[in-house]
Amino acid sequence: MKFDISEHIPNLSVDCVVFGFEDGLLKVLLSKFKLLKNTWVLPGGHIKWKESIDEAAKRHLFERTGIENLYLEQFKVFGDSDRIKNSKDIKELKEQMAVFDPDRFTPEVIDWMSDRFTCVGYYALVDIQKVKTKVGYLEEKLEWITIDAVPRLIHDHNQILNDGLLALRENLDRKLIAFNLLPETFTMKELLMVYETVYDSSFPMNNFQRKMLQLGILERLEKKFTGASNKAPYLYRFVHKSN
Amino acid sequence: MKFDISEHIPNLSVDCVVFGFEDGLLKVLLSKFKLLKNTWVLPGGHIKWKESIDEAAKRHLFERTGIENLYLEQFKVFGDSDRIKNSKDIKELKEQMAVFDPDRFTPEVIDWMSDRFTCVGYYALVDIQKVKTKVGYLEEKLEWITIDAVPRLIHDHNQILNDGLLALRENLDRKLIAFNLLPETFTMKELLMVYETVYDSSFPMNNFQRKMLQLGILERLEKKFTGASNKAPYLYRFVHKSN
Repeated sequence: MKFDISEHIPNLSVDCVVFGFEDGLLKVLLSKFKLLKNTWVLPGGHIKWKESIDEAAKRHLFERTGIENLYLEQFKVFGDSDRIKNSKDIKELKEQMAVFDPDRFTPEVIDWMSDRFTCVGYYALVDIQKVKTKVGYLEEKLEWITIDAVPRLIHDHNQILNDGLLALRENLDRKLIAFNLLPETFTMKELLMVYETVYDSSFPMNNFQRKMLQLGILERLEKKFTGASNKAPYLYRFVHKSN
Repeated sequence: MKFDISEHIPNLSVDCVVFGFEDGLLKVLLSKFKLLKNTWVLPGGHIKWKESIDEAAKRHLFERTGIENLYLEQFKVFGDSDRIKNSKDIKELKEQMAVFDPDRFTPEVIDWMSDRFTCVGYYALVDIQKVKTKVGYLEEKLEWITIDAVPRLIHDHNQILNDGLLALRENLDRKLIAFNLLPETFTMKELLMVYETVYDSSFPMNNFQRKMLQLGILERLEKKFTGASNKAPYLYRFVHKSN
């Protein structure tokens, strides 16, 4: 599979931090990289002239992980002039690219890819049970790794991941609806579990419920008379408005 | 003043939305552009190989408006593939560049500058009384224009400005300290005025005070016994912690 330099914007790339929750744990989707031994990376790549930056992020996430139709949100631009040049991995990476696929990674392509790159970081949050992954061309394997067990990643990808986690926590209130994490109707306890997982903390239900209701994004459904016990919890759904 | 293409990253630029408040009004710093008649722009420019994207934003803000030492915050990447190409202004702009300064705007530079550009948007909020502006090389004049009187801007700069305003409102709680808007000690009423100006709304003092105290960023100072009336309002200062 050739890489056509002339089809791509130089010096700009995207990387995706896809967070997922499962069994009360917060995880992140990492790719074990074929190009460097024992090295994990965030899925990402370069941008074509004919696509927007947002489109490029979606395309690379699909090509490398098989994930589609995900709400990806920009969170930060990583723009230091030496973020690749000073990477400990760059020398070995250049050597391994030539070995791995000399047809794709010609000397010209390797030079182009080893130049300065400004990276636009995207993040998302998903219910791991709801997505299916499929390894891409550069992936030895894909794994959902819990946040406190993340290995050393290539280049500055640990930094990108950490900043993505900050953005996720800071913006969760505002992005809850867009991330489409919960079934159409859900209990306050299910919502609490999302928050406790993302923040890795426990929150007292009373305070949490008051705070959530104050956000003005929840609608409480009337309990239907079912003849069953009255102790069933209230169900909520998101009020549909722009966010 | 020559423009050296080889010193700059291609296809990437920065623009700055500097909001200011004065007399209870929210304004934005706009430049009346020398290159196009009756056209206003946001200050911005291109990025040198040797500087980070953040450094480029600071440099252009200084070169074009004279403003230094401002806390600038990235808020969004404008990455549509046709954001410049489809601009109504591009044809006339190319013609006027050659007329304005043929030494700087050589045909090669004009081509380079008219290519696709992804723009990293930055915003800031200042007390207009505290900053002094100075027109740059491309500025006919600089003006603080109230938000509801913003004229049509070049390219997609109205969109960038509107998205900057959304980011300012969404993030004000978290960026209050970094923006350094208030004197070291201030009254709750002074803080309220910042919020009312930014949101263009009035907020009842009781609710506002409760919300502000809940943020955990304010410290109330003890009233000193001055012998004067006890009706002087409490003074607050920001708790110094990372934000």
